[in-house]
Amino acid sequence: MGRSRSSLVLALMALLATAAGVDAQNRLATPTQADTKTAAAVRAVLEAQRDAWNRGDIEGFMDGYARSADTVFVSGDSVTHGWQTVLDHYKKGYDSREKMGTLAFTDLEIVPLGSDAAVVLGRWRLQRANDQPHGTFTLIFRRTSQGWKIIHDHTSSAS
Amino acid sequence: MGRSRSSLVLALMALLATAAGVDAQNRLATPTQADTKTAAAVRAVLEAQRDAWNRGDIEGFMDGYARSADTVFVSGDSVTHGWQTVLDHYKKGYDSREKMGTLAFTDLEIVPLGSDAAVVLGRWRLQRANDQPHGTFTLIFRRTSQGWKIIHDHTSSAS
Repeated sequence: MGRSRSSLVLALMALLATAAGVDAQNRLATPTQADTKTAAAVRAVLEAQRDAWNRGDIEGFMDGYARSADTVFVSGDSVTHGWQTVLDHYKKGYDSREKMGTLAFTDLEIVPLGSDAAVVLGRWRLQRANDQPHGTFTLIFRRTSQGWKIIHDHTSSAS
Repeated sequence: MGRSRSSLVLALMALLATAAGVDAQNRLATPTQADTKTAAAVRAVLEAQRDAWNRGDIEGFMDGYARSADTVFVSGDSVTHGWQTVLDHYKKGYDSREKMGTLAFTDLEIVPLGSDAAVVLGRWRLQRANDQPHGTFTLIFRRTSQGWKIIHDHTSSAS
């Protein structure tokens, strides 16, 4: 590996470490290779969800969640279990491109929990013609036979 | 082990399984011994937090959280990092027994994530003289050298 390539790898690792919210004062400065891979895989799922939403593809967006009756969605005071229930809810609530708007995720902090789970903190925002709803989310990812999937979503809206 | 003792053990396991939100239709009916231990340990931390709060002991309540600058508290649109910051915030916001009221946790679902982490979904309620604020929470626990501690708390208030 040449010097410039290894510098690039180090820069990428530093970037991922920052993105994962790793505090160099409290942890090893260099994340393990497994943690770096986890963070990249989880980030790819979130980017695929955003892209699906922004082309009006709710099923594609929902593909980021585990297709299980156990998958949990918490929003404010409401707790919903089950992938299908939430898909139906989204399809009803966002039945036009205008309502869906343009989704962005920012301030992502990805923290691996062992080798098969991770927690993600972030902010979401919908850019729409007449409003910009936004807020925070906590997502629990698990590594499944279908890849990394969200099993628990706790979302808050700014009021 | 006599028949009555083993019945008691089975009843306790069933109780813990129900408490952990284990869906017999989707998972093995009997949780692993490690998962049962994790659920019991996590539940004990939550009970100790509730008891500390209800005797006006905010430091005791905060003992359920990892004493780290990385510990994350999300509430609505606000994201706060750091155990000390949140302790100071609680001490300022809840400077009397009247404001603290009586805390209860209900509807707990404890889901182990590997051997060293768990996610907890639940509802909280403060019983106070003039109001009963309440809502939902998602907690991420990790097994640390100081025992099971919360590293991430996402709390919502019913509006």
